[in-house]
Amino acid sequence: MIIIGEKINGSVSKVGAAIAEKNEACIRELAKKQTDFKASYLDVCASVSPDKELETLKWLVELVQQESDLPICLDSPNAGVFAEAIKFCKKPGIINSVSMEGDKIEKVFPVIADTEWQCVALLCDNTGIPDSAEKRLEVFERILEKAGEYGIAPGRLYVDPVVEMLASSEEGALKIFDTIRQVKARCPSVHITSGASNISFQLPLRKFINRSFIILCMSAGMDSAILDPANQDMLALIYAAEALLGKDEMCMEYIGAYREGLFGD
Amino acid sequence: MIIIGEKINGSVSKVGAAIAEKNEACIRELAKKQTDFKASYLDVCASVSPDKELETLKWLVELVQQESDLPICLDSPNAGVFAEAIKFCKKPGIINSVSMEGDKIEKVFPVIADTEWQCVALLCDNTGIPDSAEKRLEVFERILEKAGEYGIAPGRLYVDPVVEMLASSEEGALKIFDTIRQVKARCPSVHITSGASNISFQLPLRKFINRSFIILCMSAGMDSAILDPANQDMLALIYAAEALLGKDEMCMEYIGAYREGLFGD
Repeated sequence: MIIIGEKINGSVSKVGAAIAEKNEACIRELAKKQTDFKASYLDVCASVSPDKELETLKWLVELVQQESDLPICLDSPNAGVFAEAIKFCKKPGIINSVSMEGDKIEKVFPVIADTEWQCVALLCDNTGIPDSAEKRLEVFERILEKAGEYGIAPGRLYVDPVVEMLASSEEGALKIFDTIRQVKARCPSVHITSGASNISFQLPLRKFINRSFIILCMSAGMDSAILDPANQDMLALIYAAEALLGKDEMCMEYIGAYREGLFGD
Repeated sequence: MIIIGEKINGSVSKVGAAIAEKNEACIRELAKKQTDFKASYLDVCASVSPDKELETLKWLVELVQQESDLPICLDSPNAGVFAEAIKFCKKPGIINSVSMEGDKIEKVFPVIADTEWQCVALLCDNTGIPDSAEKRLEVFERILEKAGEYGIAPGRLYVDPVVEMLASSEEGALKIFDTIRQVKARCPSVHITSGASNISFQLPLRKFINRSFIILCMSAGMDSAILDPANQDMLALIYAAEALLGKDEMCMEYIGAYREGLFGD
């Protein structure tokens, strides 16, 4: 499982305050902790006004790279920042994100075309979030075609099926699981990723919904998630699911993670 | 999800001691607690020597029925006891279990043929536990044929795929998930059930393996489990999975269970 550590995000109030106050220690600690808990990438999202975004990303990325050798997942709603922001990064990471909305792809794909950067691709477009797995697949086909035009191999894409909240859904999360299965069937080499918490919005005890959701997504073929790697109960269930799904021979990864103290009682 | 409460089992040392000492309070408490936590059936297993089994089952079943209106899941390795033991029960429940081993089916199916009793059917035979999903399916076909001979509708069967431990498995639990999918595809009206803990034998932090396993089995089509309904974290994940799998409209069951205090923080 490829875990993208979600904690360095200015939209979280504690982190937003740390960014406003230039509190280096807070950012360093978040980078170090997520690295210790075996994240594969560290998401960095400034969540500040557009005029301050680049300088804030530069400050964040440089701090993070002083604490961690992990590649960065550059996170912004503004596709225009990535061309400059990737220059702050010591090694190729993941752009988060493009979709078929507006000219996001035209801004991002040329920038990463001849690099080793990867990219999160949300399955939505100018009409919003498709209301079925089939329509999400149509968006995926269009993204795949665009990637082909720029010589970006499907294996560099992290497809995000775009998760909506369960509380108002009549069919549960079935269309998300269907989307994952269909995307993987169509193109086995793409990665599938998702945040773990949108699904439980407006429900009590969100952590249980989030955990079941990630396990069920893994069952459908998801191989990445954007979450807090220091959430030990979530991590333990993920390692367990990997073993159960035949991706951890003789449970060596599960046992190793337990022995390293990544999760416990 | 049909939850069969597993706690009243003489093979558990505390319960074995209560049986040996005729400690009524212990048995009453286990019956009441599992009823409060919304079990659908209460498993009752004496786990004593054959000469004492019937009298022990009678004592247990009568105590349980004084505390709970739930139907009993009569649990014995000795298929010969069920003909007498069902007479102790106020209402039809579940026989646990038959398989294609020996003459178990010939002993049990005639007894329940013209009743409303249901039956757990393990997918194993005289050669032991089949080593693939396909071979388990063959056992299932033979059980189904036998049920047909006795006029027992498939919907009265709780198929148990027979779970082996993950620690020594090279392919994880994939053959269990395959078995569940294939049994449900072959005969959608059967129930599928399993214990939650064999899978994690010899692994650390077994609870995480058990929880992921049940969620993944539910994803494959399992609709019942034999477990402790007062295991609140497990219960919360099960209610969450039901909602995510589209079996709990607008999450009303999940929210209701939370409000009733079946699980919490």
